[in-house]
Amino acid sequence: MKVALIQMPVTADKAENTRRAAVEIAAAAARGADMAVLPEMFCCPYANDCFAPYSEPAGGAVWSAMSRAARESGIYVAAGSMPERDGERVYNTSFVFAPDGTQAARHRKMHLFDIDVPGGQRFFESEVFTAGDEATVFDTPWGKLGLCICFDVRFPELSRLMALAGAQAIIVPAAFNMTTGPAHWELAFRQRAVDNQLYTVGVAPARDEAGPYVSYGNSIVCSPWGDVVYRAGSGECAEVVELDFDRNAQVRAQLPLLSSRRTDIYELKKK
Amino acid sequence: MKVALIQMPVTADKAENTRRAAVEIAAAAARGADMAVLPEMFCCPYANDCFAPYSEPAGGAVWSAMSRAARESGIYVAAGSMPERDGERVYNTSFVFAPDGTQAARHRKMHLFDIDVPGGQRFFESEVFTAGDEATVFDTPWGKLGLCICFDVRFPELSRLMALAGAQAIIVPAAFNMTTGPAHWELAFRQRAVDNQLYTVGVAPARDEAGPYVSYGNSIVCSPWGDVVYRAGSGECAEVVELDFDRNAQVRAQLPLLSSRRTDIYELKKK
Repeated sequence: MKVALIQMPVTADKAENTRRAAVEIAAAAARGADMAVLPEMFCCPYANDCFAPYSEPAGGAVWSAMSRAARESGIYVAAGSMPERDGERVYNTSFVFAPDGTQAARHRKMHLFDIDVPGGQRFFESEVFTAGDEATVFDTPWGKLGLCICFDVRFPELSRLMALAGAQAIIVPAAFNMTTGPAHWELAFRQRAVDNQLYTVGVAPARDEAGPYVSYGNSIVCSPWGDVVYRAGSGECAEVVELDFDRNAQVRAQLPLLSSRRTDIYELKKK
Repeated sequence: MKVALIQMPVTADKAENTRRAAVEIAAAAARGADMAVLPEMFCCPYANDCFAPYSEPAGGAVWSAMSRAARESGIYVAAGSMPERDGERVYNTSFVFAPDGTQAARHRKMHLFDIDVPGGQRFFESEVFTAGDEATVFDTPWGKLGLCICFDVRFPELSRLMALAGAQAIIVPAAFNMTTGPAHWELAFRQRAVDNQLYTVGVAPARDEAGPYVSYGNSIVCSPWGDVVYRAGSGECAEVVELDFDRNAQVRAQLPLLSSRRTDIYELKKK
């Protein structure tokens, strides 16, 4: 399965961001990608005062543009995330579209990003967003994929639940910052891959030092052995990377982690 | 809390290994350590054909020597691990002794190390050992500590259970090898520390290229932010490293991972 990591810049112009994403999706398809993955909040500045004004319901302009981009390109599109309005509530939501343009999956960020590091980052997503309440795994012709958003990847329980539900890769639109990125980004993607013996794919916005939120960038693919298969720099780029799910089975046979869990002693389950 | 990481060589001579450990414990106490940590199988070659012949019950010669070393040095001793005989069964067991020589904790390895990497390591602990069935957390004057052995650290559920039980550090006598060590050792200790916002301490035997099992060494301490506070080389050494549990509280306040778990959605519990 070939995945394009669209590390695109995000501007204050929603329509321009959406158009740019569609162009990149078409280009990724032309280069042989089976799925294009956009960053978290690809169409909206990552700032609490933007999320509500930029929000749209499922079926709105951004949703429709991404559905069309998938259909016209004939590939899967994991459309990063967007502020989704649902009645009075706003969610940080990732929609996935199948090559026929239908919605293949929807994940609403389950763990909202609240951080307060003295001398570093301060951000409280929970002031604006409502949290989702479901782990998300969906079918593709290449295997099941897990889907979560940024801060969600910090919780080993969620990655484990996706792996146990059959995910062969975990797709993570994300936007770590210049405090947490250097400290924890690669580490998290590598260890979730090792623990769950699957691929992890993180896609971040390109860094804009002048923007309201400085993204770390460094979009990444890690193998089930924990190798960094691909890691971007900080700037705009769109790499197509191949995931080989046979490798998951090989690693699981060699180092039987998933099958050696002591489920007679501890239990992780959805409530 | 000052912890000594005793990265000692392990020979085929059980009495000599035990004597050597006692000397190192005394030296660590003299250098101000509050606890000395020995490697996995510090008294026995790491080989399936040695574990049963070298095994002893709790209260046997090795157990008694370590109890005495703790009492005479006046510090805690996490006595790596030894093959413990209990009736017909043999366990890979870590005993911890308090400064008065009493047994403060006992952990029997819960996840047995079975691996078969083509061109790399092949080892099946389960051919000899019985697995333990309890997570282990114990009290000290500095705070609660978790205790597990080597392969146990690969399972995020176990580290999480220890953190939820109040562990401020997880102590891991271990012996990664030259396949898994370079690939996964530092990564695992860093990410368990980040995920659970506590210190992790791994202590391995010194590397012996001529021995039956070539230990990676690289004994390690990671902070709750995921920094590598200390990392040994491959040879014999015994560093005293300070753990500052106030740092756990600071990190937990800045980046609220433990408190942001979605326990309404997923549940991890002991059965």
